[in-house]
Amino acid sequence: MHRVHKNSDFSIHNIPFGITVINGQHHVSTRVGDFVIPLVELQNKGIFDEFSILQSVFTSMYLNDFIRLGKKITVAVRKKIQEYFQQFGLDSIPAYDIRTVMMSLPVQIGDYTDFYSSREHATNVGIMFRDPANALLPNWLHLPVGYHGRSSSITVSGTTVKRPKGQTLPPEAEKPVFGPSKQIDFELEMAFIIGKENQLGEPISIENAEDYIFGLTLFNDWSARDIQKWEYVPLGPFLSKNFASTMSPWIVTLEALEPFRVAGPVQEPEVLPYLQTKSSNNYDINLDVIITTSEEKENTVSHSNFKYMYWSMVQQLAHHTVNGCNMRVGDVLASGTSSGHGPDSYGSMLEIAWKGTKPVQMSDGSTRTFIQDGDTVTLKGYAEKDGIRVGFGECAARLLPAD
Amino acid sequence: MHRVHKNSDFSIHNIPFGITVINGQHHVSTRVGDFVIPLVELQNKGIFDEFSILQSVFTSMYLNDFIRLGKKITVAVRKKIQEYFQQFGLDSIPAYDIRTVMMSLPVQIGDYTDFYSSREHATNVGIMFRDPANALLPNWLHLPVGYHGRSSSITVSGTTVKRPKGQTLPPEAEKPVFGPSKQIDFELEMAFIIGKENQLGEPISIENAEDYIFGLTLFNDWSARDIQKWEYVPLGPFLSKNFASTMSPWIVTLEALEPFRVAGPVQEPEVLPYLQTKSSNNYDINLDVIITTSEEKENTVSHSNFKYMYWSMVQQLAHHTVNGCNMRVGDVLASGTSSGHGPDSYGSMLEIAWKGTKPVQMSDGSTRTFIQDGDTVTLKGYAEKDGIRVGFGECAARLLPAD
Repeated sequence: MHRVHKNSDFSIHNIPFGITVINGQHHVSTRVGDFVIPLVELQNKGIFDEFSILQSVFTSMYLNDFIRLGKKITVAVRKKIQEYFQQFGLDSIPAYDIRTVMMSLPVQIGDYTDFYSSREHATNVGIMFRDPANALLPNWLHLPVGYHGRSSSITVSGTTVKRPKGQTLPPEAEKPVFGPSKQIDFELEMAFIIGKENQLGEPISIENAEDYIFGLTLFNDWSARDIQKWEYVPLGPFLSKNFASTMSPWIVTLEALEPFRVAGPVQEPEVLPYLQTKSSNNYDINLDVIITTSEEKENTVSHSNFKYMYWSMVQQLAHHTVNGCNMRVGDVLASGTSSGHGPDSYGSMLEIAWKGTKPVQMSDGSTRTFIQDGDTVTLKGYAEKDGIRVGFGECAARLLPAD
Repeated sequence: MHRVHKNSDFSIHNIPFGITVINGQHHVSTRVGDFVIPLVELQNKGIFDEFSILQSVFTSMYLNDFIRLGKKITVAVRKKIQEYFQQFGLDSIPAYDIRTVMMSLPVQIGDYTDFYSSREHATNVGIMFRDPANALLPNWLHLPVGYHGRSSSITVSGTTVKRPKGQTLPPEAEKPVFGPSKQIDFELEMAFIIGKENQLGEPISIENAEDYIFGLTLFNDWSARDIQKWEYVPLGPFLSKNFASTMSPWIVTLEALEPFRVAGPVQEPEVLPYLQTKSSNNYDINLDVIITTSEEKENTVSHSNFKYMYWSMVQQLAHHTVNGCNMRVGDVLASGTSSGHGPDSYGSMLEIAWKGTKPVQMSDGSTRTFIQDGDTVTLKGYAEKDGIRVGFGECAARLLPAD
């Protein structure tokens, strides 16, 4: 009989959506405990009949067509699944052991945006690279700073990452050199997936922003710090970021995270009206980063929390579209590195090892200032309250050496 | 009888590709003179039979499937079209007057990248906003600086642009304000369209780069300078750019531009080996910018040339992928503002009116420092040599007032 462990991220309260590949066929699927259920199996039982969903939606390569049905339907579908399992149990339907199933990138991503919304992270970076006395730049407290990233190189958890080559300016050097990056880092982030389009020229108000958010994933915004330092002024990070980003395969819906809603940090100075909201818009989600060295030993290097973010997702979305910029279903907006208040909760090696000055001890006796070839970086995230646990599983990727 | 004017951008030497909408149906089409020919009409004559192209490729909403056939086929298709018209004339095939045909965005764009490859433009911006003595930043002569842009808001020529609202910091103010941008600008650019994928982790060498370039369009990277100034440090332009970009509808193939190949500016200091090439990689393409005021009067405010670009397209592509970043068919890489050596060849109002200090006289008696509501900005581009003319037509868009 199929059981759900009480510490599973995928309790009956979760019911996330992802794309599995079973016998070479893509399936819109959900996960309960360690079991994967293709939605087409539930469709065949007739439980979605009232929604008249085309079968092709459930056998698509991506979730986009499913998400495009709209929250009215996808929220109802999720509820039907919950009710069905509560009534009939997991054994009533063909399910697959997660270990036997391949996961695929959940959405076809049009545009990807990365924010920079952790005050602690922005402050740490400002202290290290600019002016400790004025670590936060003048605009930072007035708007959620963000920039466009590359969607083509976002891959699903489990996909390896190759150490990139590029230009860097060595310390004291007058001319740049070319070669493999020596400072590969992770960035602990969460990302949200757009569930509804707005027309070009029509902003999404902060009051309506949640209607446009389908759900969230874990997100590792791999970064090459030495390449970044040399290239990023004045137009921002480019090749230092676009070699790879890793996304967890299960999109946890905003509705599943509702019990974990909390207030964010107090915003002072007061933000402009289009960024103001009276509701609590942060989410209490525990975030961990684990480095598994080539010795297969796990080292947890950070315990952070998504609730620390200064700028909330609804603020990010209201800001992103206030100029009329249009969102499309499947677009990805990532939070930026989610750092807490001290070194044990920082969201990047840059901060944890403080620009290489404080090497981190690994359980196999080695140390790290950045990520080494052969290391696997795993992000984990879960929310828990009143005995209810809803989590994201893993976002993991192994770093391979440069060619 | 259909004739091609000798000054037409769309001579028999051009044979560009675009998407037309005729009776509600999308068509992969070409243009000769002022006549549009859906390729399906030529397919029906049997002239592409040897390529076994599916009819659906020619009735697709975008050129992507056509481009994905590969240069071996698309170059041969273009040649067949040329030969057919040379042999049988334009009257031998159903053609549509360009004035009766709606053009649609030619490609489905995955990712859009914008470079900053004109030395004159980067120098002008550096003088105005940073340090006149050190106008070019230290990295600029070593790598083609670029950043990711927004693909969702790229629209085809003819689509109106709404003046965006956003945050700006007025001069002397301590706090930002919110409202319509007061400094809407154009940027005169060209863009190239990716015609072939590389795998993630596999760079495209500069020697092979041309195989990956399908063709070029004109590109107006609309910019809100006041929003840009407040938001862009440290992660680059964001809302100041992503409200709209305008692309010309006809993709002129790299092969059609071959006769106009010229050497670019001498690069000193010498660039790193992965950016070195012995061939001439610039193109002599005349570029004009016309502002049509609401009085319907045309004012040419710039005559520039694409040959001035310091960094060539093959350098941009080799740099963009040197870290393994993957390109997809339909991706757009824009050049950055193409400025010449003096005010009459600058590629933005920011430079032409020198940050508002040198207003430009219009023929209706008004002046401009930036673009006003009701103005239409039109980019034009053509190459000409030995009696052969190959051009891009127009990239035009009218600015509408903010809501």
